[in-house]
Amino acid sequence: MDKNISALFTDFYELTMAQGFWKRGMDSPVVFDMFFRRHPFDSGFSVFCGSEDFFTLLENFRFSEDDLNFLRTTGIFEEGFLSYLRDWKFSGDIYAMAEGTIVFPNEPLLRIHGNLIEAQIIEGFLLNTVNFQSLIATKTARVYLASKKGRIMEFGLRRAQGYNGAMSATRAAFIGGAAGTSNTLGGKSLGIPVMGTIAHSWIMSFPSEREAFDAYAEIYPQNSIFLLDTYNTLGSGIQSAIEAGKKLMEKGYNFGVRLDSGDIQYLSCEVRRKLDEAGCFDAKISVSNDLDEEIIASLIEHGAPIDSWGVGTHMVTGGNDAAFTGVYKLAWRHPTDGDEINVMKISDNPAKTTNPGIKQVYRLFNEDGTAKADVIAVVDEEIPTNEEGTFFHPDGGYRQFSFSPAKVVPLLEKRIEKGKRCVDANLSDHERMIKSRKNMEEQLDLFHQSFKRLLNPHVYKVSLTEKLSELKKSLILPHL
Amino acid sequence: MDKNISALFTDFYELTMAQGFWKRGMDSPVVFDMFFRRHPFDSGFSVFCGSEDFFTLLENFRFSEDDLNFLRTTGIFEEGFLSYLRDWKFSGDIYAMAEGTIVFPNEPLLRIHGNLIEAQIIEGFLLNTVNFQSLIATKTARVYLASKKGRIMEFGLRRAQGYNGAMSATRAAFIGGAAGTSNTLGGKSLGIPVMGTIAHSWIMSFPSEREAFDAYAEIYPQNSIFLLDTYNTLGSGIQSAIEAGKKLMEKGYNFGVRLDSGDIQYLSCEVRRKLDEAGCFDAKISVSNDLDEEIIASLIEHGAPIDSWGVGTHMVTGGNDAAFTGVYKLAWRHPTDGDEINVMKISDNPAKTTNPGIKQVYRLFNEDGTAKADVIAVVDEEIPTNEEGTFFHPDGGYRQFSFSPAKVVPLLEKRIEKGKRCVDANLSDHERMIKSRKNMEEQLDLFHQSFKRLLNPHVYKVSLTEKLSELKKSLILPHL
Repeated sequence: MDKNISALFTDFYELTMAQGFWKRGMDSPVVFDMFFRRHPFDSGFSVFCGSEDFFTLLENFRFSEDDLNFLRTTGIFEEGFLSYLRDWKFSGDIYAMAEGTIVFPNEPLLRIHGNLIEAQIIEGFLLNTVNFQSLIATKTARVYLASKKGRIMEFGLRRAQGYNGAMSATRAAFIGGAAGTSNTLGGKSLGIPVMGTIAHSWIMSFPSEREAFDAYAEIYPQNSIFLLDTYNTLGSGIQSAIEAGKKLMEKGYNFGVRLDSGDIQYLSCEVRRKLDEAGCFDAKISVSNDLDEEIIASLIEHGAPIDSWGVGTHMVTGGNDAAFTGVYKLAWRHPTDGDEINVMKISDNPAKTTNPGIKQVYRLFNEDGTAKADVIAVVDEEIPTNEEGTFFHPDGGYRQFSFSPAKVVPLLEKRIEKGKRCVDANLSDHERMIKSRKNMEEQLDLFHQSFKRLLNPHVYKVSLTEKLSELKKSLILPHL
Repeated sequence: MDKNISALFTDFYELTMAQGFWKRGMDSPVVFDMFFRRHPFDSGFSVFCGSEDFFTLLENFRFSEDDLNFLRTTGIFEEGFLSYLRDWKFSGDIYAMAEGTIVFPNEPLLRIHGNLIEAQIIEGFLLNTVNFQSLIATKTARVYLASKKGRIMEFGLRRAQGYNGAMSATRAAFIGGAAGTSNTLGGKSLGIPVMGTIAHSWIMSFPSEREAFDAYAEIYPQNSIFLLDTYNTLGSGIQSAIEAGKKLMEKGYNFGVRLDSGDIQYLSCEVRRKLDEAGCFDAKISVSNDLDEEIIASLIEHGAPIDSWGVGTHMVTGGNDAAFTGVYKLAWRHPTDGDEINVMKISDNPAKTTNPGIKQVYRLFNEDGTAKADVIAVVDEEIPTNEEGTFFHPDGGYRQFSFSPAKVVPLLEKRIEKGKRCVDANLSDHERMIKSRKNMEEQLDLFHQSFKRLLNPHVYKVSLTEKLSELKKSLILPHL
């Protein structure tokens, strides 16, 4: 991973606003929330990801002399402000959920405490990192669930959105449930297993399929996965694979085949039958070809005998939903010359109305250990266990519910203090990634199947405490 | 732009295959084509982009000692092969279309001439770079056309797919028609105008909208674009903007407003009316909020009085179509111990069948200077002007057409010779980008409106010469 990203990696208006705040002496304490508005893929859940990469890079997120010279060329910035930027770094606190946590719309995933200027300058970089990795971790978790927690190989390098799109996708896919990647550089820098099979070009470089398979088997007897569709999957493809594979079996090795076109359900059943008829009962079937969670779920439902899944395009880009809609909104400020103020954006779209104030998110659990609902509270509130509480719909209105939680877990924890990591600071990037993957697996198990259904899932409740609901109402009414 | 990308940025199977070819002494001359199979977005055209970045990075695409050590840890590679990789670099030739060219499915966009191993190792990196930038340039060209070649501001940093996803998208969006970007680092490193307005947090940091607008206007009188929807667009928003704006007008400045939520068509008409009623005839209206080419086209069709468009998510990710489907296929090889062989992949999907041999793409023009069709030919063929030729559908079958072209332009030109740029080598990255943008503009004008229609466009013909069609048939028949 690139350890240095220039602080110019920010939307230009952050810098013009920052100069404005600086000139006005308005660089006073604020709190921003990062949250998202809807799950991608019509999913019932999302996986929070990217925060640990963001924290690592944040420590070196600075302006170089060269960056300041560039800003000078725009003719918009004063020398005094450029001097301020020369010494600038983020030195606030960040409360965040643990990477790999299952998350829901409108709840703060990160809460940034800082002065106004520093909190603004990091916005774009934070959103860029967390939005993209959360998108990919969420997509991968869906693919992983669709495969019944099968073996998912991330094969997306050639279709990913640029170099870092590929590198970040490799990381997020691993956290979301992938077993490994074809991206060799990603494997090296992240410590993720690298994997792959054979391309059509290997086969086309030999006079025949059979010679191509035999040559590969001779060089890599422990890892031969023959690609069947260069000429005719159920003709020369499977026949040559069985012949080459039986030679491997005689030497005590197993082998596999890969399907990459045609009707995968039909072909996998036919190929399995031919393999079994030839006595190759242990030979594995891998598939690829524009797979996504819906295709995988359908293949499994129809009994396709598939052992591993190569997933590329859709998993590393999000496919038909290519962005996670995380936003970053001011929730609280404390002007130099005044009292603390809880603030909110009201907007012309009700869905774009935010929750005001400094907030905590609590996850409330049922007796059986499954999650019942998340509740957003004012930060100093506590939600007692084994005591009935009433919680309110975030849009106001009539809807509310009462519940006595068996367990209550706060999700936001201070992870950055004065600009530096204060949780897991002694771990390596790799160790943190492994921990995030483990967290994702554990978190998935906390939710009832109905929330994890691919199609038309049960909507998980995210409610407000009465105190927060009342605060929100008191701020909206004067503007209506 | 990062000037060094490790050659480990490749799919792992390329390296295992490469070792196989190396052990077998099969590193002989080959030709690969890069082409794509369908336009993204149901578009009638695509914009070829990313090749110049790829060429720049290719010159330093090498394996470091550290990379070789990583490969050693996998236990799969022999020392002899690792020594080979230590000295490896791409030293073949690449023929490519000019960046910014309007391109169509199945025609080679790049043709790689090299030895087998070098041609394989660069596959993933080439596809990653060209697929992504072509996706974004195509999307942006559609947005640009939808806006009637209006002022498009690329605002995608926070939703782009990672750091490099943002940086590459900024470049490709500029080539595709954007006027500038909010990505300050992209602006610096690519030399693209940086632009932006104000965020909600600016307004929420002041006691009132009016104070926030006045403060901004005082600091940036030449560039005040007031964001209207923090509380109520048609209430306090437009009223405060007009008050602050009229003060600017008294000092001889103009101003603008930005709409970011609600019904943009209705609000833009109402806001224009209120601005005009207040005598602010020159005040500009900018809009944002999840725009794409369809929304922009609809707004224009319904007479929304909009002066500039801030486009983010959809333009920098592709939105509902997040990958350009470029592939890389072997077309010709010359084994050390044999004759030249034209090869093709037949596949179980007819759409995945490739075109064999070393090929050129010719663009055939009508008398009026517009493009009639592209024709893929065997490389040594010429297509004469003002002489009727007959051209064949790439799937074989009955379809063919006859045409006497007024002009014939070959599209593939040698741009890399022995691993180094041989066209525009003396230009800077910025100059090449400007040239590609200009090429895109000129190319758009070569095509009849019907091919550029957003919805259900006319399908542009890509045909084969008789010679190529016969070659293809001769290679398919033995496998059927």
